[in-house]
Order: sequence, then C-alpha cells, then structure tokens
Amino acid sequence: MQQRTDAFILFTDFSTLGPYVGQMKAVLLAGADWPIVDLMHDAPAFDPRSSAYLLRAFSAELPEGGVIVAVIDPGVGSARRAVAIRAGSRWLVGPDNGVLAPLARQAGEVDVYRLPVPADAAATFHGRDVFAPAAVRIAQGELPGERVAGGGDLFGLDWPEDESRAIYVDHYGNVMTGLRGGQVPQQAVLRANGHRVERAWTFSDVPRGQAFWYINSSGLVEVAVNQGSAADRLDLRPGMPVALEL
Amino acid sequence: MQQRTDAFILFTDFSTLGPYVGQMKAVLLAGADWPIVDLMHDAPAFDPRSSAYLLRAFSAELPEGGVIVAVIDPGVGSARRAVAIRAGSRWLVGPDNGVLAPLARQAGEVDVYRLPVPADAAATFHGRDVFAPAAVRIAQGELPGERVAGGGDLFGLDWPEDESRAIYVDHYGNVMTGLRGGQVPQQAVLRANGHRVERAWTFSDVPRGQAFWYINSSGLVEVAVNQGSAADRLDLRPGMPVALEL
Amino acid sequence: MQQRTDAFILFTDFSTLGPYVGQMKAVLLAGADWPIVDLMHDAPAFDPRSSAYLLRAFSAELPEGGVIVAVIDPGVGSARRAVAIRAGSRWLVGPDNGVLAPLARQAGEVDVYRLPVPADAAATFHGRDVFAPAAVRIAQGELPGERVAGGGDLFGLDWPEDESRAIYVDHYGNVMTGLRGGQVPQQAVLRANGHRVERAWTFSDVPRGQAFWYINSSGLVEVAVNQGSAADRLDLRPGMPVALEL
Repeated sequence: MQQRTDAFILFTDFSTLGPYVGQMKAVLLAGADWPIVDLMHDAPAFDPRSSAYLLRAFSAELPEGGVIVAVIDPGVGSARRAVAIRAGSRWLVGPDNGVLAPLARQAGEVDVYRLPVPADAAATFHGRDVFAPAAVRIAQGELPGERVAGGGDLFGLDWPEDESRAIYVDHYGNVMTGLRGGQVPQQAVLRANGHRVERAWTFSDVPRGQAFWYINSSGLVEVAVNQGSAADRLDLRPGMPVALEL
Repeated sequence: MQQRTDAFILFTDFSTLGPYVGQMKAVLLAGADWPIVDLMHDAPAFDPRSSAYLLRAFSAELPEGGVIVAVIDPGVGSARRAVAIRAGSRWLVGPDNGVLAPLARQAGEVDVYRLPVPADAAATFHGRDVFAPAAVRIAQGELPGERVAGGGDLFGLDWPEDESRAIYVDHYGNVMTGLRGGQVPQQAVLRANGHRVERAWTFSDVPRGQAFWYINSSGLVEVAVNQGSAADRLDLRPGMPVALEL
Repeated sequence: MQQRTDAFILFTDFSTLGPYVGQMKAVLLAGADWPIVDLMHDAPAFDPRSSAYLLRAFSAELPEGGVIVAVIDPGVGSARRAVAIRAGSRWLVGPDNGVLAPLARQAGEVDVYRLPVPADAAATFHGRDVFAPAAVRIAQGELPGERVAGGGDLFGLDWPEDESRAIYVDHYGNVMTGLRGGQVPQQAVLRANGHRVERAWTFSDVPRGQAFWYINSSGLVEVAVNQGSAADRLDLRPGMPVALEL
C-alpha cells in the first residue's frame, strides 16, 4: 500500500473545547497543504512527563514521516526553550520540557533547532505563534530555527525508559501505564492500588465487569474492565504506582 | 451543485478523547487522499443496536458515496466477523454485530466481504488495524476481502424496522428515539417515562423550558425542551421505552 | 510565508458530540475542495451575544479570507433571518441574531445577503440545510442569496464595543471577559465576584494556585490561575460582571 508521509500530527492538552486547536490549525492550513491528524488533545495537562511516554507509544503506530507538534506546556512564556528536533524520518516540534525526549532518544542521533519566538507572539499561546509556524516552515522545506550544537542537551533525556505508574485514563476508564509490554512474561500479575490483576488478551476474554491487564494497541501495559471502568473499579488514578510481578 | 462523493465517514464510540480516532485517521490519510468526516464519535458505547438505528438515520442526510466505517465493537478480538458491505453507491465497513445491518437492509441487494485480520493486528483495536486498512483498500479500488456467498447472512438483519426506545441523548439533552417520524400523524402524543408530550415543529414554537416532540433533522422522533434538557426534565434515559399514541 | 485563504471556519455551540458538526462538514466537503477549520464548537449555547464577542476576538488571529460559518441559533426555524455578509476579504454566514454583528461592524462597509431556506430544510438544523449550502455557494463563486439593500440593518449592530462580563470559561478554568485589553493600563486591577485580581504576563509569572489577569492570546482580558481553575477559585461564571480599576 502506498503511504503518504506528509502530515501534521497534533498532540496537546488543549482539549477539543475552546479555540486553541482551531487557531493552531488555521495557521497550519494557511501555510502548507498537508493533512492534519489530531492524535490526542487530552494529553495529561501540566504533565509533560506522562505525556512524553504516551506520545512515544502512540507515535510507534503512526505512519513514518511528517511533523509531530506536541504542546503540553505549563511553562509557556517562561525561559524554557522552544525546539524542533529532526529524528529519523520525522520532525518533532514543541517545548523543551521533556515531552519530546523519550521519542527523540529512541530515534538515536538527532538534530535540535532552537525556535525563534516572534516579538508579537502571545506569551500564553506558543502553540499558535511559535510551534505551528515552525511546523509550517518545515513543511515548506525550510529549517525551523537555529541549529543547537552538540545534539541539543534536551531536557528529560535522563528519564527512565519506562514509568511504573498509571499515566492516562481513557474515556472508557481503561488505565494506561508507562510500562511497555514487550518483554513482560505472560503469566505476570499486575499490582495496583492494593489490587492483584491477571492478564487477558481482549475484553471479551473475561466476564463483564472483571478487571484484567493486557498489552494495549500502542504497546503499553493497560488495566481494563470488560464493559466497565477500571479506573473506578480499582480506584486507580494517574500518578499511582503499578508493578508487574511473577 | 457538483458533489464529490469520495470520503471516509467515521462513526464510533471512541469519543474524541484519547488517541483512537487519531490513529485511525493516520492510517486512512496515509493510504488515500480522501477527506474524512467525523460523523459521530459518541455513538452508544457497547450498544451496536442503538448505534445501528442512529447510523441509518444520520446516513440518510449524507451525500451519496464514500466509505462509512462504523466501530462500535464490544466484541473486538472475539470470533465476531469483520466485514465490508457494498450497499448501493456506498461501502459500509465494521464489525458484523448488527451496527451495519439496518443500513444494509435498507440498501436492498448487498455484497458482503469478510475482512482479513492481520497477524499483528491489536486484539483490542480493529478500528485501526482491520477496518481502516479495509477502507483504504476500497478507496484504492481494491476489494477489501473475500466475498461471502449468499449475501452474507449479516447479524441483525432480523431486527425490527423501528425501535420504540430512547436511543441517544445529545449534549443539549435532546432525546432521540428509534422511531422514524415519516408516517406518524401530526396530532400523535408521545408517552415516555410517565410523561405525555405534545408535538411542535421547532424549539421556538414552545415556551422556554417546555417539553415537546418533533421529527428531528435526521427523520427520527425526538423529545426536546426549548433551551433546556429533555433528558433531565423527563428523567428519560437511553433504553427506556417510548410510544406514540393518537 | 505564502498563505492560502480559502477555508471554511466553523464556530458553533453544537459541541463535538452528536452528528451535527459531521453532517455540516459532509455538506461542505461534498460541495467544495476547501479545508475546514473547527474554530470552536463550545460557543456559549443559546447566547449569541457572548458568542459574538468571542468570535470577533478569535477571528482576529485567523488568516484572512475564507468563510466563517457561525451557528449559535436558539431561534432556528423561527422568523429570524439567515444571512451571509461580505465583510472585507471574508464572508460571514449565520443567523441574524447578533452573533455576526461585532465582526461585521468592525469590517466597516458590508454587503448583506438574505439566505433562502429550502422547503425541505429541517426546521431545527439550518446549520446543515441553510448555512452550509450557502457557504458552498460562496466557495463556488456564486452569491449566496438575495442582496439586502441599505447594508442590511443587522441585529446587534447597536451592542457596545466591549462587554464588562465574563463570557466564557475554557477547559482549564480560565475565564474570558468581553473586555479587550488593548487600551488597559498595565497596573489596572480586575474586580470580579468580590475578588481583586492583579495583572501578570503568563502563567509561570505567579505561584501555582494564584489568580491573575492578563490579555489573552486573542486580545481579551482573561482571569487565570497558574495550574488551576480561575472559575472555581473565584467562583466566577459566564454572565457575571467584571471591572478594571486603576
């Protein structure tokens, strides 16, 4: 199957309410004839670290190429840098607060560019005034800013490969963790908030209302309940520790 | 007015939260240069039957053609079939759990194709790994799977033409039923949860706060309150029976 | 940077739930090969006036051109007119209930067209059956309806330039007001619901949990709390008066 690889991929905590995503998209559409994919707009607010592990996981299932614009940016308008990172066949654009770090580290050798902040940029909305324009420049074949020598020394490069915590609850109540399932033994048991949860392969494998863990469609260890909410059933919230045991 | 007819129409219970819709769209956009319409992402979760009556009603108001991808799929990863249905000028893609049945029946003669499930498909996300790739194949002019002889024997073909139940509450609190308004006498009274509701034509026809029923913009009998919530006013929830009486 | 200026900009109170936005988009996509920007779908419901001040503010940050379709329309199906307004390089389409008035007034000289309501238009959904078709006609280079002599006498043209009220709460809990920040002295203090709030420039300028006011990214005076909800902290809701004092 032929694949087009030119797309803007948006990953924010803006929600789909308010004008924020729309104003960003207006800038992107005005500057480049690329499709836009709303990967996620309910990334953990004010939490670049949890967002970073989600972004790495979700990006693995996207077609190669394009520009990922990640805006989880509680420090917007402060001294934190705005960056664009050439990482293999993809560009990553966002604040230098760690949200891009696991993805950049995974790509190996990267080039980091510091993005200019226009004098008239809104101090509270770099998504529209700094990151979207940078993504447009990349789409137009330009470099997005000034290259930083020495690989860029990105914030968050020293974070662990996996996080033993709940990091996201989806609208069904499924709880994603920062653990990747690749090397987990099949008979492992997940412990979370005093509960002991066994593994299954899909929802219909267990009775309605029963909790189980599985490797989700983005490779993360996730706790779910068949036709119910694992977050409510186990009272499991983002930030709580989880562990896999044999 | 000229009409373009090539579009992917998405109808899911994924909500607009999380990465699910975005990951599906990334697959669609990478494979075909068609626009994508988000018809609805809050279809009744775990309820292919209510979703099916909504989908039939909403589709009547869409331009002809394109591929409708419907993913309300509590049995994902189980033995239920994944299908694509050629129904007149449209293709329908989704699980064989009834969600496509009323629409297929309405189209009359249909061709049913069983979709392959790739070995590396996520057991919990056929939307991305089975249905979206099938829609792309259709857009590229290929057949999406192996044709099933004899019309396919789709699940749900024996469901009634209309459902005398509340099937959906929109964000205003308007309550849609599974009844189509086409043949309903204008003076009919709707009974629901012990209430008796009279007909009006639009919101501004009744005083603020008053309940009425009307035929909604997709042809379904709907209960509404002018500038208020019918669901709250009548304590009317999806699944509750409704009846029209002369 | 080259700018494309042909886009449909949608501004509604439909929410992103239900089939309403999707059905509108299907009409737009079928009729014209223009991109669609979802500027906002949670405009203040049933409140064309608050919506009008938001729309004017948000539109200032959009690329020039295109067609803005604004559907906040509690009087749908009643005698209120449906209009299209040529305002400088842009077209504005929506009900004549004031939602377009501040934007039209700002453009100066405008041409107003009364939109036809097709006999088979749904009385409750002019967004799909009246406004979207009008936007398509504009995109196809046609006039959308019959020109109204004398500038149109639009509803809402006599509204004040600014509104001293809270008009919108975003999903973070930031409270937007109808006041524009352009001429406000920097040392002004905002009074709202018995609270006295000082100015800052961005979130990270104040301690976590502290309220401040600032000029938001669309030029409106806004009350916020660093990593918290100003709406909850000050118990400040849409409609409540606000004032700036020296």
